[in-house]
Amino acid sequence: MRKLMECVPNFSEGRDAVLVEQIIDEARKVEGIIILDYSSDKDHNRTVLTMIGSPEQIKEAAINTARKAAELIDMSKHEGAHPRMGATDVIPFAPVANVTIDECIEVAKEVAAEIGSWGIPVYLYEDSATSPERTNLAKVRKGQYEGFFDKIKEEEWKPDFGPQEMNEKSGCTAVGARVPLVAFNINLDTANVEIADKIAKTVRHIGGGLRYVKAIGLKLEERNQTQVSMNLVNYEKSAVYQAFEMVKMEARRYGVNVVGSEVIGTVPMKALIDVAEYYLQVENFSMDQILEKRLLDEQ
Amino acid sequence: MRKLMECVPNFSEGRDAVLVEQIIDEARKVEGIIILDYSSDKDHNRTVLTMIGSPEQIKEAAINTARKAAELIDMSKHEGAHPRMGATDVIPFAPVANVTIDECIEVAKEVAAEIGSWGIPVYLYEDSATSPERTNLAKVRKGQYEGFFDKIKEEEWKPDFGPQEMNEKSGCTAVGARVPLVAFNINLDTANVEIADKIAKTVRHIGGGLRYVKAIGLKLEERNQTQVSMNLVNYEKSAVYQAFEMVKMEARRYGVNVVGSEVIGTVPMKALIDVAEYYLQVENFSMDQILEKRLLDEQ
Repeated sequence: MRKLMECVPNFSEGRDAVLVEQIIDEARKVEGIIILDYSSDKDHNRTVLTMIGSPEQIKEAAINTARKAAELIDMSKHEGAHPRMGATDVIPFAPVANVTIDECIEVAKEVAAEIGSWGIPVYLYEDSATSPERTNLAKVRKGQYEGFFDKIKEEEWKPDFGPQEMNEKSGCTAVGARVPLVAFNINLDTANVEIADKIAKTVRHIGGGLRYVKAIGLKLEERNQTQVSMNLVNYEKSAVYQAFEMVKMEARRYGVNVVGSEVIGTVPMKALIDVAEYYLQVENFSMDQILEKRLLDEQ
Repeated sequence: MRKLMECVPNFSEGRDAVLVEQIIDEARKVEGIIILDYSSDKDHNRTVLTMIGSPEQIKEAAINTARKAAELIDMSKHEGAHPRMGATDVIPFAPVANVTIDECIEVAKEVAAEIGSWGIPVYLYEDSATSPERTNLAKVRKGQYEGFFDKIKEEEWKPDFGPQEMNEKSGCTAVGARVPLVAFNINLDTANVEIADKIAKTVRHIGGGLRYVKAIGLKLEERNQTQVSMNLVNYEKSAVYQAFEMVKMEARRYGVNVVGSEVIGTVPMKALIDVAEYYLQVENFSMDQILEKRLLDEQ
């Protein structure tokens, strides 16, 4: 049974394609690594790489790409629309097959220690966070690159690895472990974005809703509809069908209907199999009954 | 993108473990073949092998196991509870990844021609059938081994390959192509098997129901409940959610509720992803968004 982990490092360069290729090449060099996707955004001036491999391969690729980013990117000259604090801004690890979240935490810590040894401050976040305040990436990154020269001196923001001093060229980096995120949107037959927003606030964790759901209300101008746009950060604990049924339930209060939904980007099979299991009321189902799961396990 | 096909040959020997191993060994010898499962039933005196591989590997394994079965099994001495007509009784091929049903039909015909060349009569069935009467395996096999000495002489039962004369030692063989079958049962909160049976008759093709659904009503003695036990022979055309909703709808007529369901054995991921897509009303979903699908395609 092959162990597979996902890693989605974000690099603070999205305009210089030659430079980006040099970073991605460091992942390509790792034998056996699967690069599912990488894309650069010019406005954000940022590149997101999605790769999968064994824990050892993923660790090697994460370290080597981060090393190349530290070499090639100068944060003191970086500008872009997306919040960022380092050349390698964030490195999340997630389980894909036959690995636990604890194994991801372990790899995250090893990678963080390595990057720290280069003189770059590193913060552990999400499931690998060393204190509750560091769980949320937005909180860790608050102040961004520019603000960190002061922020890092505060005792509560002492890095988990590396010096308690900002690295001018490379900034600092957040490394974490989490369950793969599911981006899931629900479309409503109302053009009133206030309604979508009220529903989002009720469904999301911060508003008293589902613990692992983040949500906002959005207007879909072209369709004359609105949307509850969600990130399910732990689909095993706050399931897709729960988020869906809860939005439907709250929409009823406004006489609003769900007209459709969207799954954005890549989704782990289990997130949707769980949905089928719920609606079909399946008893005693095992993921090992899935043909494709068996095929992956055989390899 | 690796092409993967499934083959589930059934051999008329389930008591002599040494003999069975010799047959399975012929599949094991084919490099790259994945043997998902094989099991022998003593009452049925029958062994079912489930294997997956490229079309070339599957073809080789199907031919070699059938050749060994023809060598080792003597049908003139066979007895068992399950209907059968040959040493290798039936060889179905099904698409798993990046192959079409037409490619399965092609492999079925090549394997059928090879077996026919050994002097064993072969009938093509299901999607590879050469006439509508040969689509249904039960119709083809009617009369079984013992009856085929006469049946084969009828013009409408002239074999598709091999001699129009029964092979006393090896019997005859059915070779076919089909979409993977989904075995799906729905449990009802009534102990009255007549109700389960009436629902089954309404839902199944033969009774005017869904085209690719076979169904019977069963009693679940231990649970004091009943069950609509179904085979979905083409889940892409008659979907799992359609069968489920139709049983629920018909059960209402009797004031009966669905208390649960069961997926039996292996199921292709897409059969359940389609269910999630339906209930979540997902727009524009592509199977390429499934992480595990991407992983298999990369190999």
